[in-house]
Amino acid sequence: MLTYELGKNKYYSLYSHIREDILNGRIKAGEKLPSKRSLAQNLGVSVITVQTAYDQLLAEGYIFSRERSGYFVADVNVDFYGNKAVESPIVLGQRSYAVDFVKGSAPAELFPFSYWAKLMRNVLSDCGEHLLERVPCDGDGELKAAIAGYLYRVRGITVDPRYIIIGAGAEQLYGVIVQLLGRDKVYAVENPGYKNIAEAYRLNGAEVVCANVFSDGVNPAEWDNWGADILHISPSHHFPTGAVTPASSRTALIARAAERGGYIVEDDYDSEFRLSGRPLQTMYGVSSDRVIYVNTFSKTLAPSMRMGYMVLPPVLYAEYIKLFGNNAGVVPLFEQKALARMINEGALERHINRLKNYYRSVRGILLQKIGSLACPHEVSETGSGLHFTVKFPTAESDSQIKSVAARASINVRCLSDYLLQPREDCSLTAVINYSGVTREQAACLDIKNLV
Amino acid sequence: MLTYELGKNKYYSLYSHIREDILNGRIKAGEKLPSKRSLAQNLGVSVITVQTAYDQLLAEGYIFSRERSGYFVADVNVDFYGNKAVESPIVLGQRSYAVDFVKGSAPAELFPFSYWAKLMRNVLSDCGEHLLERVPCDGDGELKAAIAGYLYRVRGITVDPRYIIIGAGAEQLYGVIVQLLGRDKVYAVENPGYKNIAEAYRLNGAEVVCANVFSDGVNPAEWDNWGADILHISPSHHFPTGAVTPASSRTALIARAAERGGYIVEDDYDSEFRLSGRPLQTMYGVSSDRVIYVNTFSKTLAPSMRMGYMVLPPVLYAEYIKLFGNNAGVVPLFEQKALARMINEGALERHINRLKNYYRSVRGILLQKIGSLACPHEVSETGSGLHFTVKFPTAESDSQIKSVAARASINVRCLSDYLLQPREDCSLTAVINYSGVTREQAACLDIKNLV
Repeated sequence: MLTYELGKNKYYSLYSHIREDILNGRIKAGEKLPSKRSLAQNLGVSVITVQTAYDQLLAEGYIFSRERSGYFVADVNVDFYGNKAVESPIVLGQRSYAVDFVKGSAPAELFPFSYWAKLMRNVLSDCGEHLLERVPCDGDGELKAAIAGYLYRVRGITVDPRYIIIGAGAEQLYGVIVQLLGRDKVYAVENPGYKNIAEAYRLNGAEVVCANVFSDGVNPAEWDNWGADILHISPSHHFPTGAVTPASSRTALIARAAERGGYIVEDDYDSEFRLSGRPLQTMYGVSSDRVIYVNTFSKTLAPSMRMGYMVLPPVLYAEYIKLFGNNAGVVPLFEQKALARMINEGALERHINRLKNYYRSVRGILLQKIGSLACPHEVSETGSGLHFTVKFPTAESDSQIKSVAARASINVRCLSDYLLQPREDCSLTAVINYSGVTREQAACLDIKNLV
Repeated sequence: MLTYELGKNKYYSLYSHIREDILNGRIKAGEKLPSKRSLAQNLGVSVITVQTAYDQLLAEGYIFSRERSGYFVADVNVDFYGNKAVESPIVLGQRSYAVDFVKGSAPAELFPFSYWAKLMRNVLSDCGEHLLERVPCDGDGELKAAIAGYLYRVRGITVDPRYIIIGAGAEQLYGVIVQLLGRDKVYAVENPGYKNIAEAYRLNGAEVVCANVFSDGVNPAEWDNWGADILHISPSHHFPTGAVTPASSRTALIARAAERGGYIVEDDYDSEFRLSGRPLQTMYGVSSDRVIYVNTFSKTLAPSMRMGYMVLPPVLYAEYIKLFGNNAGVVPLFEQKALARMINEGALERHINRLKNYYRSVRGILLQKIGSLACPHEVSETGSGLHFTVKFPTAESDSQIKSVAARASINVRCLSDYLLQPREDCSLTAVINYSGVTREQAACLDIKNLV
């Protein structure tokens, strides 16, 4: 029989005890709870107290009742978070693979957690109640300054910190961009590309068109075909093709944007991971009037770090303040202060260097193994970012490539999976995104006998 | 002369030292920095090292240069965050008053900061690297469960925790609502009301119409005049009128929403602050099919706590997962875990009770002082929320009321300031919002001789 020491508020204390026992697994899913009367007797409380505690557990989904048989413990990992009752794409179709070239979060063990935890403790004691102050709509000034310094050191761009906007991740910033530039505008996104980007613009009510990406990025001469006002691209390293936009195209694209009174959204999502050679110049560095620079810390820190930022042309910053000046910022001051310190102490750059070394060796192992494949294959690799592509010209189809891989417990997608609009010239090419692959997984990968 | 012990990376170390000295005020705004040559000599480094450090400080706005006179320290509190150069409504027109009935954040000293800091430390050590995991798009399950329990205890509603969505504050959630219900729908908001609400819907591309609020809230019979699909109201306590929507209107409004295939957005923003009597039932409790319940923790915790939540009808939750299932949640796991604990430990409710006691006494002092005013006045107070209204039937105009108050260093607005559409019947009424007023300020308030 459940026996607890109950506090002053008896029903609540009883409720909390049972709840904790369910969450800790001390009372198992499916287990029957004692009857109200017997538990009341055992604890020396009224039946109503037990009834109230049970009612609340019931309301919160920790237990369920069966007519005439009493109360039973629910499976809190399933029913409670509801993923069974409502169809949820998050949990459906998840299977675990030996190597996953689709998902993209950095191995957690690389994150300097104890340093980060210390930093947070220091921020707590140093900033104290200042952390409770309203967050400025464009972000904490200290973080903005730190990011300006970071961009200067890492990307070689001189950015006026005031024009930086801190947001809760990239998708949130795309929404802000639509609100800023207008949903009557046409937004061109890269094809193939991240579907989330097109989705974010569409969800915010904008019309989205596709700009095809070739080996040297999008073609400025096609701008009129797109009919776009705004072009969203990742010129330094395109996902998934790996294309790099050459300088001549960049200036041409900026010129086209200027002609149309539009803008370039420069998505610099993985530029930190240039694994060989010098990083490429940014488009924002070429024109801070026509380019909105966007980046996040999800790749460099952790996907849970919901922090991104964009650098706006001065005119748009003024517009931003006009529109959002009355709103509070969306990222807690606490995380902003901690990240500012991490940047200022140089720890972010040290962490990125560690990551780069790590990924360089993962890439090396993968390239070597793929190189020894018996079947014809063409690797396309630009020394940048965390992915490359491999074309299998003699494969039957994209689905064959994926199913052969799946049989070896490898999760992989093809270029065609990232198409937003059909294209003929994107077939038989696997996308090797190794951002979530550990060195051990790469080393254990056995693909010699794959056909 | 500035003298520093420089680290291995000389330019960066020099930059950091100077930067820190500027931020700490050891080098004051306007102060001239030593010439590059003399500083280089003093530190035994090359002129280029000093130049590079100065360049970066310049790029980041810590210093500025004057032709032929050298480098000077910028006023980092003003220029640096840029609010002077770009017109910003945030800083313009801010004046400090002895008593401010317009701004609305709870006195910071009431927040149990040391408890909160302890909680965060505990979360850091208990959850460890789990904090780095991707945040579910609808929020952390533990926090969702905690909120369900909280709503049960505090608002008497039984909410299935899975249908709760955690967002980064109310405005962000309004955006999600538009994306969920569609921007082709018409959204009715209360007039007078919070302009931010209408603004958030508009920014997200929705058409916004006004629903006039009377002493018993909005009138269901007017629904057809509004032509709305969605009605956003705060039925428990309307800001700024204080109107409470009676049960009969509530069911009628839900029925009208159902007829039109629309929804009610129930904004329960300050229901925790019912200072006398029992809290009113929620509309979500009446119909969880047609009502979206929205609330935040900005009023109860701190404005920097960018966390809000909404409870969706099951159908809309499924739709939410379909649209946003691939996105990560926008609120850091860290804050979500800490808040879940605060709720589960009962500390949030204890804190709210402390706040209620505090505000009750602020309200008492204010009502007593206003009651002794010599001029005719009618107080309208429903024992709920953190504001009430006072009508001055013999005042000349709203501006007269405000200017008389301003002369006594009181910042106050009138009902008409919160009108989104002109109305004749909202004049000569001051809105006394005391959520940001301390007991001391209330006690010192001297309004006896105001005319």
